Amino acid sequence: MSVQSINVRNQFRGQVREIIEGPVVSEIDVETPSGLVVTSVITTRSVKELGLAVGQEVIALVKSTEVAIAVP
Amino acid sequence: MSVQSINVRNQFRGQVREIIEGPVVSEIDVETPSGLVVTSVITTRSVKELGLAVGQEVIALVKSTEVAIAVP
Amino acid sequence: MSVQSINVRNQFRGQVREIIEGPVVSEIDVETPSGLVVTSVITTRSVKELGLAVGQEVIALVKSTEVAIAVP
Amino acid sequence: MSVQSINVRNQFRGQVREIIEGPVVSEIDVETPSGLVVTSVITTRSVKELGLAVGQEVIALVKSTEVAIAVP
Amino acid sequence: MSVQSINVRNQFRGQVREIIEGPVVSEIDVETPSGLVVTSVITTRSVKELGLAVGQEVIALVKSTEVAIAVP
Amino acid sequence: MSVQSINVRNQFRGQVREIIEGPVVSEIDVETPSGLVVTSVITTRSVKELGLAVGQEVIALVKSTEVAIAVP
Repeated sequence: MSVQSINVRNQFRGQVREIIEGPVVSEIDVETPSGLVVTSVITTRSVKELGLAVGQEVIALVKSTEVAIAVP
Repeated sequence: MSVQSINVRNQFRGQVREIIEGPVVSEIDVETPSGLVVTSVITTRSVKELGLAVGQEVIALVKSTEVAIAVP
Repeated sequence: MSVQSINVRNQFRGQVREIIEGPVVSEIDVETPSGLVVTSVITTRSVKELGLAVGQEVIALVKSTEVAIAVP
Repeated sequence: MSVQSINVRNQFRGQVREIIEGPVVSEIDVETPSGLVVTSVITTRSVKELGLAVGQEVIALVKSTEVAIAVP
Repeated sequence: MSVQSINVRNQFRGQVREIIEGPVVSEIDVETPSGLVVTSVITTRSVKELGLAVGQEVIALVKSTEVAIAVP
Repeated sequence: MSVQSINVRNQFRGQVREIIEGPVVSEIDVETPSGLVVTSVITTRSVKELGLAVGQEVIALVKSTEVAIAVP
């Protein structure tokens, strides 16, 4: 399914830096050009279907309703 | 409630750049030092209780299970 | 940002049937060819940037970790 | 806990088609009468407490704030 | 849609204490017998369809993947 | 990262009662003083980095947009 655009406002382009694979879900670290690491947990089936591998160019997506705000 | 540490792996430190206030929820844009903008939607009551204002230092928090991965 | 593929396993292709617009978030009903209606709440800014309108072809996306299961 | 009605607008009635069981979470595929497959990830403890099994009638539930919209 | 049981592990039974209504979403405070207040944001259409009113007995539901953990 | 305050309206203070550890995610039960048990699923890496252990004082956090409402 190719998509032209998506409502999700938070889009972090980067490379897969690490994949911790589990039987049902896997943890993916994505490193952006500025060195920021975004961590995602998705189903292992999706990791395989997307053919994700370390070094691959991806986009991490986060819906704004899922973002909390804290005051340091 | 002050917190020493939190499990949430995605933490984006930055300044409030814009607040779009609504009757129940408000949209907050947070700009990080590298120029990345992270958008959050939280309750307007929380905006007032946290005393959020443009220019304020905050941390945007995203649980890794909420992060999707796309291939460009 | 065009995307070739995305990990999100739940993808419902259909037409926008209704948009209830609010100052910060809007509610979108998407009707699939089989008559199923999927409801989404996204930011109103995204509705405008995507240029969403009734009758438009869209895809509603849901990450599997967000899906609960009930027994009738 | 039996429930008379729930605010969740997206309700997909169908049969369990597959269960991929993990030590902490499991992936459940639910197939609706129109052949649509909805995938859920829930805790394995819940799978056991609900006594989920392939062929069982269930309802997949998705809160509208969790639904993103893309333009193909 | 009546439901016999649901996978959602976090179920807080209580009474509606306050409803802040908005054009698209509304904020609902639910107070449990032990005085705990749980806040929910759902679509205003759902508030009306469920006929929610202050004093009404409800159950607030939270999927465990949506719960973060902090150390004070 | 220490945090002075956070927008998340649902904060359940209690003790870790049980940890079910998996290769990627773990399930944590938190018991509040009033005997309420709140269940969370977070990454196993976070469990280790926070040094979570049974008996430890923690706060379970839930964003209000993640809370559904049912009528019994």
